Amino acid sequence: MTVIYDRVALIGLGLIASSMFWAMKRGGLAKEVVGYARSEETRDVARQIGLCDTVADTLVDAVKDADLIVLAIPVGAMEGVAAAIRPHLKPGATVTDVGSVKRAVIDAVAPHLPKDVHFIPGHPLAGTEHSGPRSGFAELFENRWCLLVPLEGTDPEAQERLRRFWEAMGANVDVMDADHHDLVLAVTSHAPHLIAYTMVGVADDLRRVTDSEVIKYSAAGFRDFTRIAASDPTMWRDVFLNNKDATLEILGRFTEELFALQRAIRRGDGDHLFNYFTRTRAIRRGIIEAGQDTAAPDFGRGGKKP
Amino acid sequence: MTVIYDRVALIGLGLIASSMFWAMKRGGLAKEVVGYARSEETRDVARQIGLCDTVADTLVDAVKDADLIVLAIPVGAMEGVAAAIRPHLKPGATVTDVGSVKRAVIDAVAPHLPKDVHFIPGHPLAGTEHSGPRSGFAELFENRWCLLVPLEGTDPEAQERLRRFWEAMGANVDVMDADHHDLVLAVTSHAPHLIAYTMVGVADDLRRVTDSEVIKYSAAGFRDFTRIAASDPTMWRDVFLNNKDATLEILGRFTEELFALQRAIRRGDGDHLFNYFTRTRAIRRGIIEAGQDTAAPDFGRGGKKP
Repeated sequence: MTVIYDRVALIGLGLIASSMFWAMKRGGLAKEVVGYARSEETRDVARQIGLCDTVADTLVDAVKDADLIVLAIPVGAMEGVAAAIRPHLKPGATVTDVGSVKRAVIDAVAPHLPKDVHFIPGHPLAGTEHSGPRSGFAELFENRWCLLVPLEGTDPEAQERLRRFWEAMGANVDVMDADHHDLVLAVTSHAPHLIAYTMVGVADDLRRVTDSEVIKYSAAGFRDFTRIAASDPTMWRDVFLNNKDATLEILGRFTEELFALQRAIRRGDGDHLFNYFTRTRAIRRGIIEAGQDTAAPDFGRGGKKP
Repeated sequence: MTVIYDRVALIGLGLIASSMFWAMKRGGLAKEVVGYARSEETRDVARQIGLCDTVADTLVDAVKDADLIVLAIPVGAMEGVAAAIRPHLKPGATVTDVGSVKRAVIDAVAPHLPKDVHFIPGHPLAGTEHSGPRSGFAELFENRWCLLVPLEGTDPEAQERLRRFWEAMGANVDVMDADHHDLVLAVTSHAPHLIAYTMVGVADDLRRVTDSEVIKYSAAGFRDFTRIAASDPTMWRDVFLNNKDATLEILGRFTEELFALQRAIRRGDGDHLFNYFTRTRAIRRGIIEAGQDTAAPDFGRGGKKP
């Protein structure tokens, strides 16, 4: 039990914030955690399930006297919240966020914060397809990366404290520049999500292949796509609207490659296909070696609790 | 222990055939299982790990006296094997296959088989990204679908027996027409695999995002793609070459939808994105309700043994 921040305010009580609460509680990382959500229904659920030591009814009550304020809300909601909490922040407090894009969050939040508050953007690379206050669990961040994207001139002590906080919740922490973060995530997360959403939408549209068949015979490939495509619609809308350039660049490259493979299929060019598929197999091996997944077969099912 | 076929010949000793052997052994479904693989190395491995009661050194030795012959080889190899085994099949024997496309397999195999042999094509919708004789396990088919695609005039008794065989290995069995099978699978499996291969290839190509970063920060979306894209290159090359029309049709629809979503991102049309993502979420719920996956969070990791 090592208290890292006396008082933590979680703004937004979805998957990430609720997981942070359970991880903080497990580790004794805060003396008090105050939660706030815009929807009364979410606040009620939080009170019922014991999510947060206190659930505040207003943003102001949540952030006053807080040593760490975590913005765990859709990217599109960041600017309004930053403006609203500004007059109520304790001098010396740290404000961080967990948004999936970083340049847009910095542009939206940084101008609103006073100079005597440390703003250190962050992004835990962890999630499931579930959302809402009931979806969190203490182990979500175990052995996952959390990327910190500090602005120039960030106080090293405040940054080090935030790093220790994430590490105490189980994460590995790296530091990255905002634009590079947004490009890397466009490749590893944003474009794949849009592609999965698209494929699931196509299946839904097909009249000759009824819904029930698509669902019934959802072999490994499609089922994995549906899991990705079940993620929170508001969050993902905001991701694409706020990481537009990098996502569109990657999607452009994607369609270029896809057309080349389509042409190989049409022409019956088996060598092209075989060589391409052999190359992609190597990346998978790299991921397993990097410890970000296991080689154990998942029986084509996925989604098991360890 | 209910013997369904006295002697079973497994032609090809990869993931599916080796899983079939362990499932047959567990259930006592055959008195003797003979295996054959073209490569000597594979046959040696099979002997080392006790895969099959006997490993034959020739196709002819494998199929002679067999009551059930399972062609568990890439689709492109089916015709040659069918022609080679033809003179050695026992009258009244059943020949089946486990290929991922069915029209092309029927065209390749049916003309070569004698009239006194039952040819009943099949396709178990099960797999992992692993391949080879060491990758099989008895539980692979548990609660998975196996589609039988019988030709007109198929002997009902032979078909019923093959159904019981798959059910005894844990599968649910359905019967489907070959062309419809190929379209359904193009949607649920073939197109998703090509898309996953493409996305992983794009990531590999990007010079500004180094390999190590793509691997290190492979958040849920991309990691799921790499698992799909690690599947056996030979098998998948043959799938695309042999289900060309349906795959290209689905990919055409896919790019059409993707372009519409790209345009929504470029124009900042958040409502379009939100509505699309909300619709795709419902399909996921359907899959969970259909029992083809679990709702349990997988901690963003996937790939756990149950």
